[in-house]
Amino acid sequence: MTELSATEQGMLWGVIVVALISLIYAYWLWRDTLKRDKGTEKMQQVWRAIKTGAEGYLRRQLRTMVIVLICLTVILFLSVYVVPPSKEAVERFGQNAVIVVAIGRTIAFIIGASFSTLVGQLGMRVAIEGNIRVAAEAVREDYNSALTIAYRAGTFTGMLTDGLGLLGGTAIFMIFGKAAPDALLGFGFGGTLVALFMRIGGGIYTKAADVGADLVGKVEKGLPEDDPRNAGVIADLVGDNVGDCAGMAADIFESYEVTIVSTLILGLVLLHMTGNTFWIVYPLVVRAIGVISSILGTFTVPMWENFPLKLLRARDAEEAMFRSYEVSSVNTVFWAFMFSWFYAHEWQLALLNAVGVGLAVVFNPLTSYFTSYKHRPVKEIVESTRTGTATTVLSGIAVGMESSVWSVLVICIALGVSYLIYRGMTPIYMLYGVAMVGIGMLSHTGNNVAMDSYGPIADNANGIGEMAGVGERAWAIMAELDAVGNTTKAITKQVAIASAVVAATSLFFSYVTDISLVQARLGIPETEFITSIRVSVLEGTIGFLLGGALPFLFSAFALRAVSRGAMFVVEEVRRQFRIPGVLEGKVTPEYDKVVSITTAAAQKELVSLVVLSVALPLLVGIVFQVEALGAFLAGVILSGQLLAVYMAIAGGALDNAKKYIEDGHLGGKGSPAHKAGVEGDTVGDPLKDTAGPALNPMIKVVNLVSLLAAPIIVQYRGSAGIWVAGLILLAMLVWAIRQSRKDVGEGLA
Amino acid sequence: MTELSATEQGMLWGVIVVALISLIYAYWLWRDTLKRDKGTEKMQQVWRAIKTGAEGYLRRQLRTMVIVLICLTVILFLSVYVVPPSKEAVERFGQNAVIVVAIGRTIAFIIGASFSTLVGQLGMRVAIEGNIRVAAEAVREDYNSALTIAYRAGTFTGMLTDGLGLLGGTAIFMIFGKAAPDALLGFGFGGTLVALFMRIGGGIYTKAADVGADLVGKVEKGLPEDDPRNAGVIADLVGDNVGDCAGMAADIFESYEVTIVSTLILGLVLLHMTGNTFWIVYPLVVRAIGVISSILGTFTVPMWENFPLKLLRARDAEEAMFRSYEVSSVNTVFWAFMFSWFYAHEWQLALLNAVGVGLAVVFNPLTSYFTSYKHRPVKEIVESTRTGTATTVLSGIAVGMESSVWSVLVICIALGVSYLIYRGMTPIYMLYGVAMVGIGMLSHTGNNVAMDSYGPIADNANGIGEMAGVGERAWAIMAELDAVGNTTKAITKQVAIASAVVAATSLFFSYVTDISLVQARLGIPETEFITSIRVSVLEGTIGFLLGGALPFLFSAFALRAVSRGAMFVVEEVRRQFRIPGVLEGKVTPEYDKVVSITTAAAQKELVSLVVLSVALPLLVGIVFQVEALGAFLAGVILSGQLLAVYMAIAGGALDNAKKYIEDGHLGGKGSPAHKAGVEGDTVGDPLKDTAGPALNPMIKVVNLVSLLAAPIIVQYRGSAGIWVAGLILLAMLVWAIRQSRKDVGEGLA
Repeated sequence: MTELSATEQGMLWGVIVVALISLIYAYWLWRDTLKRDKGTEKMQQVWRAIKTGAEGYLRRQLRTMVIVLICLTVILFLSVYVVPPSKEAVERFGQNAVIVVAIGRTIAFIIGASFSTLVGQLGMRVAIEGNIRVAAEAVREDYNSALTIAYRAGTFTGMLTDGLGLLGGTAIFMIFGKAAPDALLGFGFGGTLVALFMRIGGGIYTKAADVGADLVGKVEKGLPEDDPRNAGVIADLVGDNVGDCAGMAADIFESYEVTIVSTLILGLVLLHMTGNTFWIVYPLVVRAIGVISSILGTFTVPMWENFPLKLLRARDAEEAMFRSYEVSSVNTVFWAFMFSWFYAHEWQLALLNAVGVGLAVVFNPLTSYFTSYKHRPVKEIVESTRTGTATTVLSGIAVGMESSVWSVLVICIALGVSYLIYRGMTPIYMLYGVAMVGIGMLSHTGNNVAMDSYGPIADNANGIGEMAGVGERAWAIMAELDAVGNTTKAITKQVAIASAVVAATSLFFSYVTDISLVQARLGIPETEFITSIRVSVLEGTIGFLLGGALPFLFSAFALRAVSRGAMFVVEEVRRQFRIPGVLEGKVTPEYDKVVSITTAAAQKELVSLVVLSVALPLLVGIVFQVEALGAFLAGVILSGQLLAVYMAIAGGALDNAKKYIEDGHLGGKGSPAHKAGVEGDTVGDPLKDTAGPALNPMIKVVNLVSLLAAPIIVQYRGSAGIWVAGLILLAMLVWAIRQSRKDVGEGLA
Repeated sequence: MTELSATEQGMLWGVIVVALISLIYAYWLWRDTLKRDKGTEKMQQVWRAIKTGAEGYLRRQLRTMVIVLICLTVILFLSVYVVPPSKEAVERFGQNAVIVVAIGRTIAFIIGASFSTLVGQLGMRVAIEGNIRVAAEAVREDYNSALTIAYRAGTFTGMLTDGLGLLGGTAIFMIFGKAAPDALLGFGFGGTLVALFMRIGGGIYTKAADVGADLVGKVEKGLPEDDPRNAGVIADLVGDNVGDCAGMAADIFESYEVTIVSTLILGLVLLHMTGNTFWIVYPLVVRAIGVISSILGTFTVPMWENFPLKLLRARDAEEAMFRSYEVSSVNTVFWAFMFSWFYAHEWQLALLNAVGVGLAVVFNPLTSYFTSYKHRPVKEIVESTRTGTATTVLSGIAVGMESSVWSVLVICIALGVSYLIYRGMTPIYMLYGVAMVGIGMLSHTGNNVAMDSYGPIADNANGIGEMAGVGERAWAIMAELDAVGNTTKAITKQVAIASAVVAATSLFFSYVTDISLVQARLGIPETEFITSIRVSVLEGTIGFLLGGALPFLFSAFALRAVSRGAMFVVEEVRRQFRIPGVLEGKVTPEYDKVVSITTAAAQKELVSLVVLSVALPLLVGIVFQVEALGAFLAGVILSGQLLAVYMAIAGGALDNAKKYIEDGHLGGKGSPAHKAGVEGDTVGDPLKDTAGPALNPMIKVVNLVSLLAAPIIVQYRGSAGIWVAGLILLAMLVWAIRQSRKDVGEGLA
């Protein structure tokens, strides 16, 4: 195997420097946010309640996670002793290979988990700091300043994601070289697992609080949204932060790093085959180019609304954000082509990257088509509110189902391009090509996360304003900021799902490549060698069917978890309304009590969902072997992706249909059409905020667990030990299913 | 290859005789139904309107179908000239092979299509004859007699299905022998295609009429269900017949024959390999045993409510029907074991059959668990009606998603048993084993269809009673019959889906086996030989992603078709309400006008859905070749099965939750909980009656089209002709998608 040249070493150090620049920029954004004014005391009072609640939630979540993470750290460390280290590791580290790999993988796992946690925790904290300051600027009636703060606080998370993801992946490769896959898997798994925790926990929390507060406040008592007399209202605002900020940030970080992980794993195989080092260096450098482009792009945001050339001038804040996104994209594509031309002498790589970048851009109009009230789908939902809730929900379901297909088509185009470029070569090239598309798609994670975080920040500022009672003009500013946030949030959610699928598909291909290597290393006889995943053999069919079923089960359980959680909130809010003075607004409700009840409920629910996602694939692998497990992964990706998009878009479209009516159409607020719209939105909410987004990290956790377990499954198949492990997993699975199938409200008794 | 012995020839003649007995029994049931009294003139008046409407619908549908069928007949005939006949055909028919195969396949296609049409048409006509007579017996207050008529009229369709399916499959094998696969595929395709037409058309019709009539009658005017002043009410009653009777009967017939087709195709390969003829003879004889058991079983129905042994005594009509089903099952399993023991000397075959029979029995409690108000899932939906429509719908969605997983598990057990029995043998044994399980699952189609048809018959009798205004006591009898029908209908629908999946899986395996044979015949070099379907190569991934997407697109379009159709009904019913005297009940509305408008709308919609199901797989095959097409099939089966069960169960559970409240719980009719229940049911209705059931035949049409096209795709890959065909298909696909995406209510302008 060829080693990296000095120039290439230098390039990698350059990547590290870019990662650090990104982190420094993030730090600057943070300081800048903190410097701003925090507004009136009344607003700060509301805000402190939100802040305390959200931070309390994250502390509690950390406690839950830490136990699982410690167990897994031990298992991961020991697992290296079960399976001999790779040939490459022995070559590189000699007789110390085992201990080096054990420590390396374990530390990489811890780093992955910590980075993911950091992105989620810090991202949310800065967003919360932003909330109050955006509200304060709105009160001072400074629209531009409010917008800037909201966007900058969001950009913080974006830059943190970029910096940590790039830093981790590159550093691991530099330390382990060709023996990196082991550690990379640990890194990816750590990040993904934490993201799964935060997505599920945050998703359940936010919707349990929302539904619970609304059911008692709006439905039973007829109070408006965000009314301070409602004890659940702070929990609801906290939910926006823990779900949309912390959960989302950890999730996108995980996609960002997983695409690096799978590209490097496949790239190392190609490097081994061809002796070319660019398979590794190119994607890392391109990611660094993407980070620089992202930073430049975010600087241009304020420019577009007053751009001298009228053709390019942005009409509103939303367009300005997208314009900056497009600037970053053009910049990255250009420099990636330059770099491929002068360094790798392979235009194909740059083209694949460009396709990925382009796909992320294409997803904007695609999602916008299905979720914006300007286009036919949402208009049809709005029309159907005339005839009641049932037709509204059905329209939403149809829109969601249809949109999932168009996303699949876009992804197939990505795969098709890779297929065409590397036609006639051995399949590994095509698989690598798909991973490169993934690199491109997430190149501008910085901008994406910035736009995505902007949403909940504006939303919360709005909520603070509502609760603290601000003036008419301030309210109008916040409402406008909020409306922009809704669109950017919906769109970036879609990009997150699409890139999750591409990332998962690359992981799946890594799995296929990996089991071949593992079998060779373990000396499995050629005749029994499995080199591909066939669904036309019976084990494959069984694996495939079970894999496809998992996302349905997972979603069903996530929805039930929300219902169960909401029941706790309902009980507590009802109890507080019975306290004399609360309903009259004379006594402040105990907001924190609802917050802590919701937190406890979400933590209780998430463990069984995580166990389900980890135990089922392992069990399939143990019983039906690695080929069935591969088919299982294919099934999970297929139905997981379709369901995730279906739920996200159905929810988003229903939400915007409601908002359109609230803007005064079809009789506006209080009309029968509005009622149907509100109920439709309530159906869509847990779909788009809990079940749908949690599928992203779930798909990847399943893939990474399988990658990590494959060597053990191959080596110990049929042994007593593995059957014992299988029985333990079965017991865990049964426990998880029983937990998740508990009666709604059972815990209340 | 070994020829059949004289004894075996005799056995096959025996199977033909059993098929004829089944048809004679069906004829007797028909005559018996016609002999009964038709009740009062007022009832007959209502009934004649339904009868005219339903028959008009079927005539119109036949016209639509015939055009497509004629085109396909020509294409099928000519296709034989494009691909040389199989080696077996040349051996058997010498130089006439081409023309014999061309004529044989074409005639088999016509027979398949005609049989499917016959089952649908006659089944519905006899059901309609039954409707009025059940109502008449109820008016005479004779519960038992009413029950007997309803069950017998339903059994007619069951016996017709058995007789024609068995006759066709066996006769084709006897004529073509080892060259049968060509003709069998034609037979299967004809039946399946007609079933797809009838399921989609009937499904759209029934829900468009239902939703349209309800929206104006119930929601706008506040009239009760089945009120004679509502112009849409007859169309609604017609819908029960064309959807639940005709569509369902054609669909189950198609499953019945397709399991025979796939078993014979795989059996012929095994016969070729092993020289044993029992691979062919056994499944046919077992099906004949099943038919005899079914007949015996239906005779025992009246016995169980007064059975001397208390332990076995049935508590109600529902239990009596299931008891008879179990009797048939035990009988079949016993004789199938005997036969395998004394004839084939292979206990494995009997075990596989027993597993299939057992699975069909197991599906009863499983479905009952998810859809009966006695168990937790529906109870939870009922609970959630307390907090409004949104929580009700969400509960329904969660129940549906969860149930789909348990069905997958049951199917995996079927596959697992086959895997265990034939472990270590070449894969073809396992694939055949799965097909044998399918033979077992549909052995008692007679009883199944009887129970399923019973549902709409009782429902319609109820509707006739309501419109003609019968007495209190008669009403109670009809309501009870109707309630039993709802449960049996839900359960048999589930068996239909499960057997559809097993049938589709066998077809998929036939596809895999078939492409190997085709490649060998065409002299494809060994190195390029495709013998399995890998999802781990890029073409495979693209194929399976697109395949998984098809059921989502199909469902979305089916739901939109219902909405569009309903808008036509709404306009017409509104127009008629404006006619002076209609709302006061003095002028009879023009029921037939609504019927013909709905008929036209349904016909217009179904063509694009059929085109979608046929063009997409062919296009995937042409562009990405046969392996990708195989992966496409796997994707369709996976997501199609999950969606079908999800929608069927969500709809059924929501329906029964509403019924439970109507029985007087949670405040009964008119309470807020009831309102939420009704809206939940309205969401569930198009899911369970249109989109869900149409997926069954769609999955199989896709599989059969692929099987038929595979030789052409392999032989002509890369040629100019095939690309031209591809462009035509693309144009058709674009047309179909544009049609299906038209605005709701667009045609009104």
